[in-house]
Amino acid sequence: MACNKEIPQLAEIAANPLPKVEELIDWLASFGADPDGGVTRLLYSSDWAAGQSAMAVLMEQAGLTVYYDDVGNLFGRLQGSEQTGSTILTGSHIDTVKCGGKYDGAYGIIASLLALARLRQMYGIPKHSLEVVSICEEEGSRFPLSFWGSGNITGRYLPDAVPDVQDSAGTSLAAAMTAAGFGQGAYRPSLRQDIAAYIELHIEQGGTLEREQKTIGLVKGIVGQKRFTVELQGEANHAGTTPMAWRQDALCAAAEMIVWLEAEAKKRGEPLVATVGNITAKPNTSNVIPGNVTFTVDTRHADQQQLDEFCQQFLQQFQRIAEQRAIRIAWQEWLNDPPVAMHSALVEQIEQICRQRQIDYRPIYSGAGHDAQIFQKVCPTAMIFVPSHKGISHSPMEYTPPEALTAGIEVLTDLLYSLAYEGEPG
Amino acid sequence: MACNKEIPQLAEIAANPLPKVEELIDWLASFGADPDGGVTRLLYSSDWAAGQSAMAVLMEQAGLTVYYDDVGNLFGRLQGSEQTGSTILTGSHIDTVKCGGKYDGAYGIIASLLALARLRQMYGIPKHSLEVVSICEEEGSRFPLSFWGSGNITGRYLPDAVPDVQDSAGTSLAAAMTAAGFGQGAYRPSLRQDIAAYIELHIEQGGTLEREQKTIGLVKGIVGQKRFTVELQGEANHAGTTPMAWRQDALCAAAEMIVWLEAEAKKRGEPLVATVGNITAKPNTSNVIPGNVTFTVDTRHADQQQLDEFCQQFLQQFQRIAEQRAIRIAWQEWLNDPPVAMHSALVEQIEQICRQRQIDYRPIYSGAGHDAQIFQKVCPTAMIFVPSHKGISHSPMEYTPPEALTAGIEVLTDLLYSLAYEGEPG
Repeated sequence: MACNKEIPQLAEIAANPLPKVEELIDWLASFGADPDGGVTRLLYSSDWAAGQSAMAVLMEQAGLTVYYDDVGNLFGRLQGSEQTGSTILTGSHIDTVKCGGKYDGAYGIIASLLALARLRQMYGIPKHSLEVVSICEEEGSRFPLSFWGSGNITGRYLPDAVPDVQDSAGTSLAAAMTAAGFGQGAYRPSLRQDIAAYIELHIEQGGTLEREQKTIGLVKGIVGQKRFTVELQGEANHAGTTPMAWRQDALCAAAEMIVWLEAEAKKRGEPLVATVGNITAKPNTSNVIPGNVTFTVDTRHADQQQLDEFCQQFLQQFQRIAEQRAIRIAWQEWLNDPPVAMHSALVEQIEQICRQRQIDYRPIYSGAGHDAQIFQKVCPTAMIFVPSHKGISHSPMEYTPPEALTAGIEVLTDLLYSLAYEGEPG
Repeated sequence: MACNKEIPQLAEIAANPLPKVEELIDWLASFGADPDGGVTRLLYSSDWAAGQSAMAVLMEQAGLTVYYDDVGNLFGRLQGSEQTGSTILTGSHIDTVKCGGKYDGAYGIIASLLALARLRQMYGIPKHSLEVVSICEEEGSRFPLSFWGSGNITGRYLPDAVPDVQDSAGTSLAAAMTAAGFGQGAYRPSLRQDIAAYIELHIEQGGTLEREQKTIGLVKGIVGQKRFTVELQGEANHAGTTPMAWRQDALCAAAEMIVWLEAEAKKRGEPLVATVGNITAKPNTSNVIPGNVTFTVDTRHADQQQLDEFCQQFLQQFQRIAEQRAIRIAWQEWLNDPPVAMHSALVEQIEQICRQRQIDYRPIYSGAGHDAQIFQKVCPTAMIFVPSHKGISHSPMEYTPPEALTAGIEVLTDLLYSLAYEGEPG
């Protein structure tokens, strides 16, 4: 695809923004186009800075008041007529994983900008202030921390306590932030008290909407997740001289656990998922019975109680399998993120919009983390999903068809109109 | 254990050899005693050379005619009175794995020497020549080839075609052999036409005899083995956003195959064994569904047809599992060693000896490879097993109780007497 870095003509776009979505997404993807394919815009990198600068110009063209905060979040503000001091915020993250897709994050920012541009052109000044945000970081792909952008806006992170983390080259977060011109008080403080609602439009990153031929995913919540490492200790022994009946084969035990876990997760059904992503056997030699196996379990559910119950159940079952096989078992829970429900009144409003517009939708839980889960702690929050082709994301193969991109913007625009021009937020 | 490198007094030993077995095994283990524990005598190393030299002195003390062949096999000959030109050969291998045990190989050599010493002292010159052999290499632990000693005696390897293999330090087999003084025609040719029978006494390396409280294993044969690598290709995907019903999880498929393989091998029973020793999942990350899994299958049986049938069956079952899960499967058979039956008349003779001596024995198949399988191709061959404590071998923990060591030598001595002083071999 040709990389066209000229700033698109926003006046023209705002007049009829929808056919321009793909063009703008391609244009934004040209900032950080990776020679290995896809887009790489890591926090505070030059490609990242170029992406934010380009978005700033686009926001200005759309008639918004543009500003950065002190960690590099970029805002475009449409001041409301009523001096309530509250702001309806919409957007997504500008950063990507390495060789990521064009849509993850970027679509939400472009869509929000187009929605604001259209609302301003069609309806003028809103009652309540509207802002589009291009969040500096969500992915955790440069530094071992995530939600740096939304975390600073909501108070999860504080400006005086920058986490002491380094990227793979040994550069600290603080040093990278300084080098990019942020973190020194040159911009507005990040922490906000005026956010009345946060709305995020995002690709699904799963294949459910496409399989069910739905255009919009009505996000009910973001699943909670727990991750474990399980270690099995049997007895390494000669593959030829040890009869089947006298083995303490740690890999056979692990296999029985994995088969059980999958069957039980299928039985319990959506939105539960359970994944053994990592497995290591020792000594891992073809003619030696594995004496030691370590594997991970990643399990997610929208309901905390059901997640807890499932974890308790599979750990009991693992213990039973281990006992029957005279295998020692130990496990460690090393991640425990609770589920986050989206704001029910907002979810209802989105549902009404879909019905009015006769857009096929389905309720859905997000199996991946999003900035919305950070905002939900401080304000009413909602997410809208559009389909991901084959469920692929974090890949140059990421794709969402144009009609779905358009539908997402229409739903977002309607919701923002309702909140900022009609409603009484917060 | 104290390391006493003085040569034991053979005259005394020969008079009443049996209580000295353990002492001699400890003494031989002092050549190559590894600082990390156990014994390391790799082919053509200085420790290996010292071990062979020590055995040569012991053979001479026993009144045997001592000679090397050109690849470093060491022989002690007791010339027979009848000029049939045929030789009854008995012994085992002097080389060890890294940090191996004291008994694997070494016991067979010491036992054969003690048997010959005793026979000579008690009965004088045999009808048919008897030889003890300290075979230079069997384990394949320095170079990626095994049975180098027996292979040269039997014509499996030929002196003019030394395999082009290297050890981990990059030294070629030919260079290592030259450095040790062999391979240059200085000694007798290795290839033999005069071997009328080969008898090998060895530790079981499995736990069957100990569990069943048997002193002697009557080796009916050495199992055949086939090894495979199986590769499964599913689809790597997001562990959070991919519902259970829409996964192509290569690790779940592998787990189902491993569980099935184990159950079927148990159902078919001894002497069938099947082992998945090596497994690798990709990308092997806790929050990504494994898209690719590779694992090995090592399966062994004493009967070729049953081994073939089992392999056909499990490969069909693997294919079925893969198809049901929309996983692509490919496999490669990379090892196919047929089973080797021991010489039935010799096996019967050993059984008679056990009965006469009222020694508890049981028929057994060797699940591991031995020099006996190489000799069996050229002459009547038999093996006698003694128990391995807990089935442990290739480990400093290797242990066989003294009464079993003694019993093994008694059975061997009786058999050699029968073959060399009474019988009409081959």
